[in-house]
Amino acid sequence: MSLNTFGHLFRVTTWGESHGPALGATVDGCPPGIPVDEAFLQQWLDKRRPGQNKNTTQRNEPDAVQILSGVFDGQSTGTPIQLMIENTDQRSRDYGEIAQTFRPGHADITYHQKYGIRDYRGGGRSSARETAARVAAGGIARAALASLAPGISIKGYMTRMGEIEIDRSRFDWNAIDGNDFWIPDATAAADWEAYLQKLRKDKNSVGAEIEVVARGVPPGLGAPIYGKLDTDLAAAMMSINAVKGVEIGEGMAAARLTGTENADEIFMGETGPEYSSNHAGGILGGISTGQDVVVRFAVKPTSSILTPRRSIRMDGTPTEVITKGRHDPCVGIRAVPVAEAMMACVLLDHLLLHRGQVGEGPRGSIG
Amino acid sequence: MSLNTFGHLFRVTTWGESHGPALGATVDGCPPGIPVDEAFLQQWLDKRRPGQNKNTTQRNEPDAVQILSGVFDGQSTGTPIQLMIENTDQRSRDYGEIAQTFRPGHADITYHQKYGIRDYRGGGRSSARETAARVAAGGIARAALASLAPGISIKGYMTRMGEIEIDRSRFDWNAIDGNDFWIPDATAAADWEAYLQKLRKDKNSVGAEIEVVARGVPPGLGAPIYGKLDTDLAAAMMSINAVKGVEIGEGMAAARLTGTENADEIFMGETGPEYSSNHAGGILGGISTGQDVVVRFAVKPTSSILTPRRSIRMDGTPTEVITKGRHDPCVGIRAVPVAEAMMACVLLDHLLLHRGQVGEGPRGSIG
Amino acid sequence: MSLNTFGHLFRVTTWGESHGPALGATVDGCPPGIPVDEAFLQQWLDKRRPGQNKNTTQRNEPDAVQILSGVFDGQSTGTPIQLMIENTDQRSRDYGEIAQTFRPGHADITYHQKYGIRDYRGGGRSSARETAARVAAGGIARAALASLAPGISIKGYMTRMGEIEIDRSRFDWNAIDGNDFWIPDATAAADWEAYLQKLRKDKNSVGAEIEVVARGVPPGLGAPIYGKLDTDLAAAMMSINAVKGVEIGEGMAAARLTGTENADEIFMGETGPEYSSNHAGGILGGISTGQDVVVRFAVKPTSSILTPRRSIRMDGTPTEVITKGRHDPCVGIRAVPVAEAMMACVLLDHLLLHRGQVGEGPRGSIG
Amino acid sequence: MSLNTFGHLFRVTTWGESHGPALGATVDGCPPGIPVDEAFLQQWLDKRRPGQNKNTTQRNEPDAVQILSGVFDGQSTGTPIQLMIENTDQRSRDYGEIAQTFRPGHADITYHQKYGIRDYRGGGRSSARETAARVAAGGIARAALASLAPGISIKGYMTRMGEIEIDRSRFDWNAIDGNDFWIPDATAAADWEAYLQKLRKDKNSVGAEIEVVARGVPPGLGAPIYGKLDTDLAAAMMSINAVKGVEIGEGMAAARLTGTENADEIFMGETGPEYSSNHAGGILGGISTGQDVVVRFAVKPTSSILTPRRSIRMDGTPTEVITKGRHDPCVGIRAVPVAEAMMACVLLDHLLLHRGQVGEGPRGSIG
Repeated sequence: MSLNTFGHLFRVTTWGESHGPALGATVDGCPPGIPVDEAFLQQWLDKRRPGQNKNTTQRNEPDAVQILSGVFDGQSTGTPIQLMIENTDQRSRDYGEIAQTFRPGHADITYHQKYGIRDYRGGGRSSARETAARVAAGGIARAALASLAPGISIKGYMTRMGEIEIDRSRFDWNAIDGNDFWIPDATAAADWEAYLQKLRKDKNSVGAEIEVVARGVPPGLGAPIYGKLDTDLAAAMMSINAVKGVEIGEGMAAARLTGTENADEIFMGETGPEYSSNHAGGILGGISTGQDVVVRFAVKPTSSILTPRRSIRMDGTPTEVITKGRHDPCVGIRAVPVAEAMMACVLLDHLLLHRGQVGEGPRGSIG
Repeated sequence: MSLNTFGHLFRVTTWGESHGPALGATVDGCPPGIPVDEAFLQQWLDKRRPGQNKNTTQRNEPDAVQILSGVFDGQSTGTPIQLMIENTDQRSRDYGEIAQTFRPGHADITYHQKYGIRDYRGGGRSSARETAARVAAGGIARAALASLAPGISIKGYMTRMGEIEIDRSRFDWNAIDGNDFWIPDATAAADWEAYLQKLRKDKNSVGAEIEVVARGVPPGLGAPIYGKLDTDLAAAMMSINAVKGVEIGEGMAAARLTGTENADEIFMGETGPEYSSNHAGGILGGISTGQDVVVRFAVKPTSSILTPRRSIRMDGTPTEVITKGRHDPCVGIRAVPVAEAMMACVLLDHLLLHRGQVGEGPRGSIG
Repeated sequence: MSLNTFGHLFRVTTWGESHGPALGATVDGCPPGIPVDEAFLQQWLDKRRPGQNKNTTQRNEPDAVQILSGVFDGQSTGTPIQLMIENTDQRSRDYGEIAQTFRPGHADITYHQKYGIRDYRGGGRSSARETAARVAAGGIARAALASLAPGISIKGYMTRMGEIEIDRSRFDWNAIDGNDFWIPDATAAADWEAYLQKLRKDKNSVGAEIEVVARGVPPGLGAPIYGKLDTDLAAAMMSINAVKGVEIGEGMAAARLTGTENADEIFMGETGPEYSSNHAGGILGGISTGQDVVVRFAVKPTSSILTPRRSIRMDGTPTEVITKGRHDPCVGIRAVPVAEAMMACVLLDHLLLHRGQVGEGPRGSIG
Repeated sequence: MSLNTFGHLFRVTTWGESHGPALGATVDGCPPGIPVDEAFLQQWLDKRRPGQNKNTTQRNEPDAVQILSGVFDGQSTGTPIQLMIENTDQRSRDYGEIAQTFRPGHADITYHQKYGIRDYRGGGRSSARETAARVAAGGIARAALASLAPGISIKGYMTRMGEIEIDRSRFDWNAIDGNDFWIPDATAAADWEAYLQKLRKDKNSVGAEIEVVARGVPPGLGAPIYGKLDTDLAAAMMSINAVKGVEIGEGMAAARLTGTENADEIFMGETGPEYSSNHAGGILGGISTGQDVVVRFAVKPTSSILTPRRSIRMDGTPTEVITKGRHDPCVGIRAVPVAEAMMACVLLDHLLLHRGQVGEGPRGSIG
C-alpha cells in the first residue's frame, strides 16, 4: 500500500473528497475479458448507499457509478478502469465555523497539522464517502473473481453493536441480507433497531464489530513474508475509516489459549486436507489453507454526535463542538459492504500474484 | 508491502531460512550520515536472542550481525545496508519424517501447497528465526530516528500470557527491562514464570498479548488513505509470525463504546494541542496526533508442542505429530523486541515519507 | 513504473481510451499548498492540442481539463488530484473493417495477442491521445516545481525531422515558442513546413528527433542504482508513443569518443563547481551535477499513412491497409510538450525523493 | 524501479561497494521449482570477470558467487534468493588524495553533493563492480526462463568501439563467444585488439556500442503504458554504469525515416504472424510481437585514464587527476554480459507479470 493506492497487481487508487464534484477509483491490473458493467457495480453501491434506511445517514445521493475507461463491449480490456461517482447532494451551507474548528475524534486536526490546508467541507478526503469508491472497485474485483475463481463467496455481517452481540448458536447465513443491520439472525433485528434508536435519541453513537468470511478460497494464496494474506487483509480493514482493531480467526483471544486448545488438527478429506477447527482463520504462515478465511474488525462509535464535546479552534482558543448534519449513529453498518469490497480486492490481488509467481493453481499435491 | 519487502521509502527486505548458511536484511533508503555500527545493532539482537533465559528456546546462537555494505567510517552512506547473521547452530539431524509430515498450526502444509517445495529444516523461511533480521533492520531505524527525531522512544511489553494479565494500576515503565517477560511490573515476574513452567511441564504452550508504545512521535506522520500510520502498523505487526490480531488504541473494545465515552476531547496545552484521553491510540485519520502511539497484538500459542496432535503426511496418510526440538512455550516473549523493531521501521518510514511529500516538520500551526 | 503508473513519490496513473467518454490522470503525492488551477494546466494542453495548426491532426477538441479532486481554494491539499479530459469529438463511424484488421506498425496486433480483446476505436488505449493526460499531470508537476525549485526551467524542441536537422550554430532558445515546429531557429520553419507538406502530399509520414533541456536543476537529484535520474528519464521518454531511442548528453555518439575527448573537466566557479563541457548531459552516476540536464529521443514516423501497406486480418487472411482519418504526418511535433511534461514529472519526483531520504537541498558542500 | 531495486514481480535489489567485505543481490519473486545452483550462476560471472583477458582490468578476483538462501535441494523455493560475492582483492592503499578529490566523469562529486559522505575506495557504490551482482541475478532469471520459456535465447555483442564497427554483412552469431570482444565476426578481433592496445598505450580509453538480442520471445509480453517492455528495457540498460543512450530496433535512426520506409508489413506465416522487417525491434505498443527483441546502447569511454584531467578537491582548490590503478580502457566489453543479464531479468519479469494479469500464454489467437 502506498499513499492512495492499495494492492500489488490489482491496484486500486481512490480519489476525491466528500464535497468536491466527484470521487472515484482508478483500477489498474484487472485481467482482460472480465464481463462487467455499471449495473453490476451499482448493486454493491446501493447496498452501501446512505439514505437507504433510517439507521444510516439521511444524505440522499444516488451514488451512481460511471465506467469511464477500460471496459469495451461489456468486458474489461486489461487497461485501467476509471470509476466515477458524482457528488450530487452537496448542500450549500456556511462553513465558517467548521473551517476554523477541529472536531474531536476527526481527522480535522491531523490533516491541518500535516498539510497546513484541508478541505473542511464534510470532512473532505477523510470522509467515509471515500468508501463508495472502494465498493465500486470491489465490484470489479468480484466480477474478476467470478470468472477466475467462481467457487469463492464473500459475506460480511455485524457481530456486535455496543452492548449487544449476535447469538452464534442462531447464526443464519441466509438471514444476513434480510435486515438493515446485516446480522445473521432474522429475529434479532428489532432489538438492534430499538437499541440504536435509543442511542440516537440520546444524541449519542455507538461502535460495532464486523466479521467478513470468504468461502471457497483455494489453498496457496498469500505471499510470505510481507505480502502475507493476513497482513494484507489487516491493512485493508485497518485502512477503513474508524477501524481500531483487526482479527484473523481466533484474533486477540488467541492470547488466552494454550497450544492444545488452539491446534487445528489435520485430516484427509474427500478432496484434500480438512481441519478439526479453524482457529487459524483459514491462513497458516500467511497462506490460505482452503478453509474459510475469517476476518473481524472493530469500528469506533461515530465521532460526529449531537452531544457537545470540548475542543479548540485553529487559533488555539477553546470551543465546544456539536456535529450537526447527517451522520450515522453507527458507522459500522455501512462498513459491512466496504469490508466485503476490501476482501474481494485482496483475494483477487493474491490470486493474480500467485498466478504470476507460481502459475495456475497450487503446485503441491497431497495424497 | 510486497512479497519480502516492507516500507515505502525505508525499505527492508528480509531473506534466509532457519537452517541455511545465513539470513539477513537488505535495508534500502536509509538516510546518509547516520552513525551506526555492529555493536549498536547487536544490543537489540541480544535482547531477542534465543538461549538467553530458560523461558525461551535453548538454541544457543550468538546471532552476531555483520554489516556488509552501506556504512563507511561509522556512518550510513545512503546506499543499501546489508545485514547478515550466520546460522551457526544448525544441529545436523535426520529430517526424514518431518520432510513428509505437516505439523498442525505450522506453515508446512501451505508452503507445500503453494510452492510444491519447501525447506523443511526448522521451518525454513516460515521459522521465527526470520525475525532476527527484522530486529537488525530495526536497529538501523532506531539509529536514524535518534538522529532525525531524537524525541521518540519506543517500548514494548507483555500485557497478557494465557490466563494472566498485567495489573495496569501497577504499570511501571522502568520495570520492563528488569525481567524475563518484559512486563511493566517488577513484582509479577515470579508468577508469570511459575505459570509458564507449569505449561512447559504439561507439554503445552500459551498465547500472549504485547503492547508497543511510541512516545514523542511528532504530529503529522501518516499518509492517508492507504498508507495510514495505523494501516502500516497493523500490517507490520500482523506480518510477525503467529500474530492473529492487532489493535490501535482502544482496539476491539471500541465496538462496545458510545460516542460520548470514546471521545478524546482537545485542549490547548503549553506547546500545542493536548487530549483528555487517548482512545485513538495517537492516530486520527491515519495521521499521528502527537500523543503516544499505542499498538497491541495477540500471538497465538506455539504450535510446536510435545503433546501429540493428529495430522497427515504428504501422501495423505494420517499420523500424529509431537514437535521435539528447541521451542519457546510462549513465542510472545521474543515477539517484544521484534515488535519494537517493526514500530521503529514504520515510524522512520513515515518520517521520511512526510519529509518527502510535505517537508521538514508539520506544516499547519495551531494557536 | 508499474503498469499504468509512473513515479516513486509523485505518482501519475493515466487512464482512458481515445474514443471512450473521457481520459485523464490520477496524480498522487503532490505536495500540499501548491497554487494550481485549471487555467494553469490548460495552457500546456493547448500547446499539445490537435487541430492547432495545419501540421498536426485536424481533430478538433478543446481538450479542456477538469480538476475533480485534491485542489481546494486554489491550492493542492496533498490528496490525490484527479484530472479529467472529456472526449468530445468522437466521430461516429463504422468500425467493421478496422475491428478485424491489424494496422502495420500499430499496437493493434499486440494488444489483440496479449489481451484477446481491444478497444479498436481510434487505437483505444494505445492512441497518442493518452499523452494529453500526461501533459495535464505535467502541469501539476510544473506548478509544484515553481514553488519548490523555482530556478528550474524546462524546454523541449525539435532537432531533426527526417532529412532536415537544426543548425546548432543558429540555436535560439527564444525562437522555440514562435513557430509550429518548436524549433530553436526562427528562420528555418518555412523549410520545415515545405518539407512536411511534400511528405503529406506523398501520402507519407516522417520521424523526428526531440531534445528536452532542464536548466537550473540543483545538484544531488537521482537515486542510484536503479532510480537514477537518467534511468527514470530514459523510461519516461521511452514510454511515449512511437519513441525508439533515448539519449542523455552525448548519447549514442559516446561510443565513438575517447576518454580524453569525453571528459568534462571540473573548475570552481563563483557559486560552486563548473564544468568545461557537458558530455554527461548534467548527470554523473545517476545524480544531477547542476549543469543542464539534456535528454534527446527519436520518434518513428507515423504508422498511419495513406500509402497502402500489406497486413493481415484477425482470421489470418491477407489485406492491405490505408489508414484514413486525421493523423499527424509527424507525431514528433506533438511529442514536444509531452516530453516537457515527463521531464517535469521526473524532476519533481526526484526532488521529493531526495527530500525524503536526504532532506532539503544537497548535503555535501564544496569549497 | 525504486532506489536499489528493479523489477515488478521478479525483483532484484543489489547491494555492496567496490571495496567493502562483499556485494550481492537479493532476488525476490523467483518462481519455485527452478533448478539452479552456484555453478550455473558462476559461468555468467566468469564471462564478466575482470582479469580474464588483457583487454579488461587486471584486478584478479575469482568473483565466486554464494547462494545463501532461497534454494533447497537444487531448486528455488519461491523465497528470496540471496547471492553474495566476497571482495577478496581489495589492495590496501593510501586513499588520502582520492578521498579529497573528484575524478572528472565519475560519480565522486555527485555522491558527495547528494549524500555528504561517500565510500571513496574504488568508487564505492558507483563502481562497475556492482554489475557482478546483476550478472548473478541474471543467472537466476536465465534459469527461470529456461524452465518457463525454453524457446528464449539471449545474446549480446559489441557493434562498435570508437572508430571501428562491425561489418553487418559478415554477422556470425556463432563467432560471438569465440573472441575477447564478443563481436559477431571471427576475423575482426585482431583489428579490434590492435586498436585498443594503441589507445591503452596513448593513456586513453574509448566508448562502445553493444547490441542485445532476445530470440524466441513469445508475443504478448509488456504492460502498457508505463510498464512497456521497451520502457523497462530502456531503464534497465540506462541503469548500467556509463551508458548514455538506448535504442530499440531502428533506434535514433527512426527520426530519419519516412512511414513507408519504416513499416514492418505483416504476413501470415506457418505458425502465426510474420513481418517483412523488424524496424520495431520486436515491440509494438510496448508489447512483444514475437520477433527478435533488439536493444542497443552506448557506453561512454572509461573516465579513469592516465592522461591528466583538470578537476577540484573538496575544498574547491584546483588539481589534476590521473587515475592510476586497474581500469578497462573500454568498459563496453564487460558491459556485454551485464546487458544480457538485464535482458534476462526484464523478460522474466514481464513473463511473470503477463502470467499474473492475463494467464498462461497470449489470449488472442490469429487465423
